[in-house]
Amino acid sequence: MKIQEGSYVLLFHTPRKKWLTKVTADKKIHTHLGVIDVGATVGMEYGSVIRTTEGKVIFLLEPTIHDFIMKSERRTQIVYPKDLGFIAARTGMKNGSKILEVGTGSAATATFFASIVKPDGHVYSYDVNPDFMEIAKRNLEKASMADYVTLNHHDPHLGVEEREMDIAIVDLGDPWTVLDQVHDALKGSGAFVAICPTMNQIEKTATELKKSGYADIETVELLIRVMEAREGMTRPSMRMIGHTTYLVFARKVQKKAHTIDEQAEEGDEEEREGPEE
Amino acid sequence: MKIQEGSYVLLFHTPRKKWLTKVTADKKIHTHLGVIDVGATVGMEYGSVIRTTEGKVIFLLEPTIHDFIMKSERRTQIVYPKDLGFIAARTGMKNGSKILEVGTGSAATATFFASIVKPDGHVYSYDVNPDFMEIAKRNLEKASMADYVTLNHHDPHLGVEEREMDIAIVDLGDPWTVLDQVHDALKGSGAFVAICPTMNQIEKTATELKKSGYADIETVELLIRVMEAREGMTRPSMRMIGHTTYLVFARKVQKKAHTIDEQAEEGDEEEREGPEE
Amino acid sequence: MKIQEGSYVLLFHTPRKKWLTKVTADKKIHTHLGVIDVGATVGMEYGSVIRTTEGKVIFLLEPTIHDFIMKSERRTQIVYPKDLGFIAARTGMKNGSKILEVGTGSAATATFFASIVKPDGHVYSYDVNPDFMEIAKRNLEKASMADYVTLNHHDPHLGVEEREMDIAIVDLGDPWTVLDQVHDALKGSGAFVAICPTMNQIEKTATELKKSGYADIETVELLIRVMEAREGMTRPSMRMIGHTTYLVFARKVQKKAHTIDEQAEEGDEEEREGPEE
Amino acid sequence: MKIQEGSYVLLFHTPRKKWLTKVTADKKIHTHLGVIDVGATVGMEYGSVIRTTEGKVIFLLEPTIHDFIMKSERRTQIVYPKDLGFIAARTGMKNGSKILEVGTGSAATATFFASIVKPDGHVYSYDVNPDFMEIAKRNLEKASMADYVTLNHHDPHLGVEEREMDIAIVDLGDPWTVLDQVHDALKGSGAFVAICPTMNQIEKTATELKKSGYADIETVELLIRVMEAREGMTRPSMRMIGHTTYLVFARKVQKKAHTIDEQAEEGDEEEREGPEE
Repeated sequence: MKIQEGSYVLLFHTPRKKWLTKVTADKKIHTHLGVIDVGATVGMEYGSVIRTTEGKVIFLLEPTIHDFIMKSERRTQIVYPKDLGFIAARTGMKNGSKILEVGTGSAATATFFASIVKPDGHVYSYDVNPDFMEIAKRNLEKASMADYVTLNHHDPHLGVEEREMDIAIVDLGDPWTVLDQVHDALKGSGAFVAICPTMNQIEKTATELKKSGYADIETVELLIRVMEAREGMTRPSMRMIGHTTYLVFARKVQKKAHTIDEQAEEGDEEEREGPEE
Repeated sequence: MKIQEGSYVLLFHTPRKKWLTKVTADKKIHTHLGVIDVGATVGMEYGSVIRTTEGKVIFLLEPTIHDFIMKSERRTQIVYPKDLGFIAARTGMKNGSKILEVGTGSAATATFFASIVKPDGHVYSYDVNPDFMEIAKRNLEKASMADYVTLNHHDPHLGVEEREMDIAIVDLGDPWTVLDQVHDALKGSGAFVAICPTMNQIEKTATELKKSGYADIETVELLIRVMEAREGMTRPSMRMIGHTTYLVFARKVQKKAHTIDEQAEEGDEEEREGPEE
Repeated sequence: MKIQEGSYVLLFHTPRKKWLTKVTADKKIHTHLGVIDVGATVGMEYGSVIRTTEGKVIFLLEPTIHDFIMKSERRTQIVYPKDLGFIAARTGMKNGSKILEVGTGSAATATFFASIVKPDGHVYSYDVNPDFMEIAKRNLEKASMADYVTLNHHDPHLGVEEREMDIAIVDLGDPWTVLDQVHDALKGSGAFVAICPTMNQIEKTATELKKSGYADIETVELLIRVMEAREGMTRPSMRMIGHTTYLVFARKVQKKAHTIDEQAEEGDEEEREGPEE
Repeated sequence: MKIQEGSYVLLFHTPRKKWLTKVTADKKIHTHLGVIDVGATVGMEYGSVIRTTEGKVIFLLEPTIHDFIMKSERRTQIVYPKDLGFIAARTGMKNGSKILEVGTGSAATATFFASIVKPDGHVYSYDVNPDFMEIAKRNLEKASMADYVTLNHHDPHLGVEEREMDIAIVDLGDPWTVLDQVHDALKGSGAFVAICPTMNQIEKTATELKKSGYADIETVELLIRVMEAREGMTRPSMRMIGHTTYLVFARKVQKKAHTIDEQAEEGDEEEREGPEE
C-alpha cells in the first residue's frame, strides 16, 4: 500500500528512535540522526526505506492502533494494548458485538472496540464531560470509526437507554455507582468489565457486583515483560512497566440469586489452599 | 437469549465449580453439589438460575471463546486468551484483516481470529498434519467460522500462495524456517508474530528475523495475576500461571536494508542503561 | 560431615520426590520409589548416595533452614525464604544486631534471624498466645538457638522493655497497633518491617507509620519464578507462587517532624510520572 | 548512636530525594531543596532532623548495606539486595559458615556475606583482575570486614586451596568452567550458587552441573515490586525493575551417581503438567 498525503507513517530507526507523524508535502523532521524528508515519502510503499541526511536507515511503517496508543502524550490515562486485547479476548468480543461503554475519554478505547465489532456491531459510549465528547468526536472521525460509535453526552447514573448489550465496559473512578444501570442494559449472561487502577477500587467494585446481580466475578492484572532476545545473550529487559490497571470481570445474572451461605463458599475455596510451589 | 437444544451452556456455581456442556433433552450431570438437570434448561434465558437436587444455585451462563479455551483438555497446547488478545491488539487486527496462519493445530486460534476479522477479512491456515486438519475442519464448523477460514493441507516450507497479507502468525516449533515464505506473503509493513514457548526459540527467531527483511522486532511475555478482591481482605491469589509462551513480533520491510553498524546500534541502546528503580 | 542418629537428612531423588526425616536406627521409609533404609545412613557422609530397594538413587543432603521451611506443614502461615532473606538484606541485619520481634508464631522466623545475628546479637520475641510459646521454645531448642532468643509471653500492646533495638519485625494481623511501642524500642534510624499479606494491611500500616515518627516508608512484594534450564529447551516453569506477603519497611525518626506540605510532596512524586516503557 | 566525623549518613527527604555522604566538618551539599549543612550533623543522633536553608526537613538516617548498594554508581554490575538476601536464606548462610567466592568484583558481595558469617565464619574470595583486588581491599577495610575476608589473587580455574566449604558463590561470565574446582572445595552436600544474568548462562550452567556431581539443581529469578500504599489509593508502582539476574542453586554430591534414566526422569516431571490456573 502506498503512502499518501494525509496518511500517518511511523518513521522507524530502532525501538527507541522512532517518530509517528502525518505526511504532508514539504514536511521535514529534524532528529539527532539527521533530517528526515517526510514529504518525499508520498507515493512510496509502506515497508520501504529512506535515509536521513546523515545516511541513517528509516523504515516507513504503517502505524497500527498499538503505535498510536504507545505514542500518545497522555500516557497516564490510556488503556494499554495488553489490557484492551485481554478485554476483547476475555469477553468474547467479535464482529456483531454490541458494546456499552461508560466513560468515553478520548475515544481511544471505543476506536479499538469499534474496529473489532464492525461492521455488524456497535459501541454506545457515555461521558458527562463535554470537552471529552468534542475530542472523542474528532478522534473517531480521524479513525473512520464514527459510523460504529454513538456518543452520548449523558450522565449514565441517570440510566442508559440501551438494552441487550453483549458487553459493558466501565472506565470511571467509581464504577460501583453504575452497576444497576449497566445491569439493565446488559443481556442475560452479558459480560461486564471495569477498569480499576487501585486496589481500593477493585475491592469496592467486586463487593458491590456480588450484591447487584452479577456472577463469575474475577479481578486480574496483566504484566508485560520485554525480552532482549540476542544470540548468546538472551535475558529479560532491565526495565519494565510496573502497573497499568486491574480489570474486574463479571457476568450479568438474575438478581438476588445468591444466599449468604453461597457467598461464604466462594471465599472459602481460596483460604484452604496455600501457595502452590 | 434463550437456551436451545444443541446450545452450549456454562453451568456456574463458583469459579472452581463450573461445568461446560452441550444441552440435550434428558441430560443430567451428577456433581458433588447434587444433580443438575441440563435438559430442563431448554427454553430458559441465559443469565437465569436453576438449582441442583441439593438446592445449590447454578447460573446458566453463555460460554464465550474464553470459556471454551480455559475448559479445553489439551491445556499444554492451547494459546491462552491473554496471548491471543495481545496478538490482536498489538498487530492491529480488526474487521477486514487478512491473516496468514502457519500451524493450524485444532483451529482454536483461527476461530478466535476469524471472529474478529469477519465478515470482510479471512484467515488462511497451513498445517502438514492431516489429523489436525480433520479436527480443525470440525471445530470451525461447530463454531460457525468455516466460511472465514481456508485450511491448507500443504507444507508452508514449500511456499504459500497468499500475498498482501496484513498479519502472519506462526505457531511452529521452528518458526525461523518459514521467515522467507512469510515475508513473500505479507504486505509491506505487515505484522509478524511467532508463538515461542522457549528461550532458545525466541533467540533463534529474533536473530533470523533481523537477517530476513524484518524490523521493529520485539519479544514479550504476558503474565496474568488473579486478585482476591474481598472486603477488608484484598490480596493477590496465592496461585499463578508461571508461563504460557513468549511472543516475537516484527514487521516486514524491504530486505537488505540493515547495515552491520545499525544492527550493532540496536544492541547498544539497552546495554548502556542499568535497571530502572 | 557424618550423619548421626538424631540428625536430620533430606533424602533427595528429584525436586518433586524428596523426604525430610530424622535419622533413627532401624527406620525405613516406604515410597513409590521403593523402601529407603534410613537407619543405614548413620555414619555416612552428607552428599553421598544410597539406593532404594528398587535401585533408585537417593542423595543424602544436609537440610538447611530453607528445606525445613519449605517442607513445613503449616504452609499458609510460614514466612518464605525469599521474604526472610530480603528482610535481612534490606534492614542490614548482621552479627550483633539486636532484633525485636512482635509475633513469635512457631519461632521459625526467630530461628532464622538468630542464626544470622549470633553470637553477638539477640532476638527478643513477643507473643500473647501461650500455645505458640510452648511450640516456639521446643523449636528453638531443637535448632540450638535458644541462647539467642528471649521469648516474652507478654502483650506487646502494653509496651515492651527493650530499648535501642537495631531492627523491629512485626508479624501481627494489625501491625499499626504497636507502632508507638516499637518506636520506643528502636534506636534512632532503626529499621522497621511489618509482614502484611493484604492490601488493606499495607494501606493502614503505611498511613499510620507516617504519623508515628517513621520515615523512608516503602512497601514491596517479592515474586519468585523458577526456570526450567535444560539444553535446548529453557523456559520459565509453568507453575508459580502467586503471592506470599507484602513487606512494609520504614525507619524510626524523631516524631512530629513532618509537615502536611511535606507529606503531600511524597505523594506527588509518583503521580506526575506515567508507566515506564 | 551519635554521628561522628568520618561516619556515613543518608540525608533523607523523600524516597527520590536523598543523598548518601561521608560526614566531614564544614561540608555542605547544594541541592534543589536548599543547602544541607553536613558538618553540622556531627554529634547529632541518627534518626534526628535538620533543615535545609529553605526549611525542608532532612532526616539523618544511618545507612545500611542496602543503602550503599542502591546508591552505588556501578548499577549494572551490582548484586541486588533481593538476590543477596535470597542467596543467604536459600543456602542456610549463618554465623560460622565458610564461604568460597569466585569473582570478587568490588567486594560488595563479600562484605555482605562477611557481615552475616562473622565472627566464626569466613569468606575466601578469588579474582584474577588486579584492579578489582585493590578496590576490594580498600572497600573491605572501609567496611571493617577485612578480618573476615581473604582475597586470593589467583585464577580459580587452576584450582582453589580451600576444602570443606559450606557454600560456594560463583560470579563469572562462564561459571560452568569452575564446577570441578568448586566441587573439590565444597563439603559433601555443600551449597552452590551461580549468578547468571542471561538465559544462555543458566542453560549451560545447569546442564554442566548435572554432569559434574551436583544435585537439587534449581534456577530462579526474583522480581521486586514496589507498592504505593496510600489511604484510599493503594496500587502497585508504575515503574519496576525488569531484571537483575538469574540464580542457579545446587548441592555437591558424590560424582557419577546419576544414570541416564534418572536424568530423564527429572525432565519428565514438568512436561506432564500444564500451567496451573
